[in-house]
Amino acid sequence: MLNKTIHHKELKSLVESIFTQIGCEEANAKIISEIITKTELRGISSHGVIRIKDYLELWKKGRVNINPKIKIVHESPSTAVIDGDKGYGMIVGKQSMQIAIEKAKIAGTGWISVRNSNHFGIAGYYTMMALEHDMIGIAMTNANPLVAPTFSKEKMLGTNPISVSIPAGKENPFVADFATTPIARGKLDIMHKKGETAPDGYVQDKDGNPCFDPNILTEGGAILPLGGDRLHGSHKGFCLGSIVDIFSAVLSGANFGPFVPPQVSYLPLKENLTGLGLGHFFGAMRIDAFQAANEFKSYMDSWIQTFKNAKPVAGQNRVWIPGEPEREMEARLAVDGITILGKVLEELKMVCDEIGIECNI
Amino acid sequence: MLNKTIHHKELKSLVESIFTQIGCEEANAKIISEIITKTELRGISSHGVIRIKDYLELWKKGRVNINPKIKIVHESPSTAVIDGDKGYGMIVGKQSMQIAIEKAKIAGTGWISVRNSNHFGIAGYYTMMALEHDMIGIAMTNANPLVAPTFSKEKMLGTNPISVSIPAGKENPFVADFATTPIARGKLDIMHKKGETAPDGYVQDKDGNPCFDPNILTEGGAILPLGGDRLHGSHKGFCLGSIVDIFSAVLSGANFGPFVPPQVSYLPLKENLTGLGLGHFFGAMRIDAFQAANEFKSYMDSWIQTFKNAKPVAGQNRVWIPGEPEREMEARLAVDGITILGKVLEELKMVCDEIGIECNI
Repeated sequence: MLNKTIHHKELKSLVESIFTQIGCEEANAKIISEIITKTELRGISSHGVIRIKDYLELWKKGRVNINPKIKIVHESPSTAVIDGDKGYGMIVGKQSMQIAIEKAKIAGTGWISVRNSNHFGIAGYYTMMALEHDMIGIAMTNANPLVAPTFSKEKMLGTNPISVSIPAGKENPFVADFATTPIARGKLDIMHKKGETAPDGYVQDKDGNPCFDPNILTEGGAILPLGGDRLHGSHKGFCLGSIVDIFSAVLSGANFGPFVPPQVSYLPLKENLTGLGLGHFFGAMRIDAFQAANEFKSYMDSWIQTFKNAKPVAGQNRVWIPGEPEREMEARLAVDGITILGKVLEELKMVCDEIGIECNI
Repeated sequence: MLNKTIHHKELKSLVESIFTQIGCEEANAKIISEIITKTELRGISSHGVIRIKDYLELWKKGRVNINPKIKIVHESPSTAVIDGDKGYGMIVGKQSMQIAIEKAKIAGTGWISVRNSNHFGIAGYYTMMALEHDMIGIAMTNANPLVAPTFSKEKMLGTNPISVSIPAGKENPFVADFATTPIARGKLDIMHKKGETAPDGYVQDKDGNPCFDPNILTEGGAILPLGGDRLHGSHKGFCLGSIVDIFSAVLSGANFGPFVPPQVSYLPLKENLTGLGLGHFFGAMRIDAFQAANEFKSYMDSWIQTFKNAKPVAGQNRVWIPGEPEREMEARLAVDGITILGKVLEELKMVCDEIGIECNI
């Protein structure tokens, strides 16, 4: 099937129809379609439409509850543990971040550890929710194990991303959103499809030897932590991935590390699960719990301008502030449309056929 | 002068005498000597006795106030901004972390951004303070600019470390403490003295070209962010260093990035400083604001055991849990004594002569 470029509103409407059709409450279907569309607009298609089939397969296998009763199971003025009732991660994530923001309004900050959830898409969506409240947003999640700690042959951690969004004044906000590995899984798949070799420091083989095959994960290999090897600081990447895992899962009672449920239905759950579902961690810090919001924003503008004006190395225009590339992409794709790859479109049409709606894009 | 090995109590007593002699209140001199000694015991001598001469020079130049009036300038139930009144970072840091812990007792968590401080030694000291309260401790600090962001020729950030300490039950606590660069400055100095070349991905020259000279910082070069180059994720290391800088300095009103005051008195302050002194950020999260502390600790034991038992690669015994190497070092040096290098001892004797006390080690 040929690639197709569509307006983001068309995409949003189709995704909403899909999730409404399988029985999601309208508000929940809207959240899922909003996040998937935003993800595509920001150019992170590894977390966008391509996931819809897997999301539906997980529901068909009973691993996802499409109308979860999300509840607070423990709390203090600035914290809560939330049980996601096996819901889609986007629904659980958005509600949890809203609770973090509500806590921050009263206590100055809000910190939520979440269990019994599923893959939540891009972490940056949740942290950007804090910006309109003049808050700093923080989000992280554990994920199915693909990453070997320093000196380990075994895959023990996910690519465990961290996002931090920080408001500015005249400048655009600072939006960091990054896996705690040199690359995410999706990029390895693309290299494999193109017949490329992986750079050093990306993956290791099943025995832990350096390896350049982007497809090595299918043969017992693993992604390396940020840093690559011990000499280049992989133990620091391992620290980061561990902190994400512990804040997301040990604090909440979700499955940690090697026990995190896979994001695809054809892989079985581990035996002897240690907890409930997958875990996330969210934070919101009210700027004026530290200083007047306007003063902060003007100081943040000064930070951004200073870094933008750093002298660039030859061949580069300038230093990029975290979030700039995705923001530029979003502005462009909002006009030019979102391109869905033929193969992904084919899957989407099969999904629509199966659940009995028209794939009207 | 020959190296000398001394008992840690002797060292602590001498350091306390030095800071008392220059006029520090006894309680403050005790804090400084406690932290410097703990740092040496943990084997991080780059942040230990070797810094004493510089600490005193900064005071002589009037850049440090030895008896600061540290005060809260803004607060909410779970947050505060603290002005360190130009005090030594160890004194400001310890008091700030204590306030974070007190906030957490009431609000569940406590978050403190600090301005007008100085170099605070090892971040791990402050996060370990949280452990005895059944809290997770978080600390970070900005530092004088040595690091070039991805695509920058200029040094814009410090090595900006992050520490997170997490309590466990039968197992020892998880104590992560790492610079957001592949290596810290001190290790480059050691390589240079040994005549070694630096591995790829550690430093760049003044034009931003890859470079293997560990002494290149004296010729306009820079340390690279964790990841090394763009291909290996240096933009993620840059995100981390930026987040540390913004939380420590923009939230508090300290100097950010390139304006952070140098840690040595022979380097001048930047013109047009943007804020007050150097900045830190501290956090304390009460475990039982999320779940019963005993349940958490037993789950954390299970996390640690699972990771310790990951199958190791050939030539390695096992995966190390963050904090283990330093804890083993501390147990060993508490018995065997701390070795002070001849050159450092010489400096220490000169410092003692100058301020008129006996260097009785």
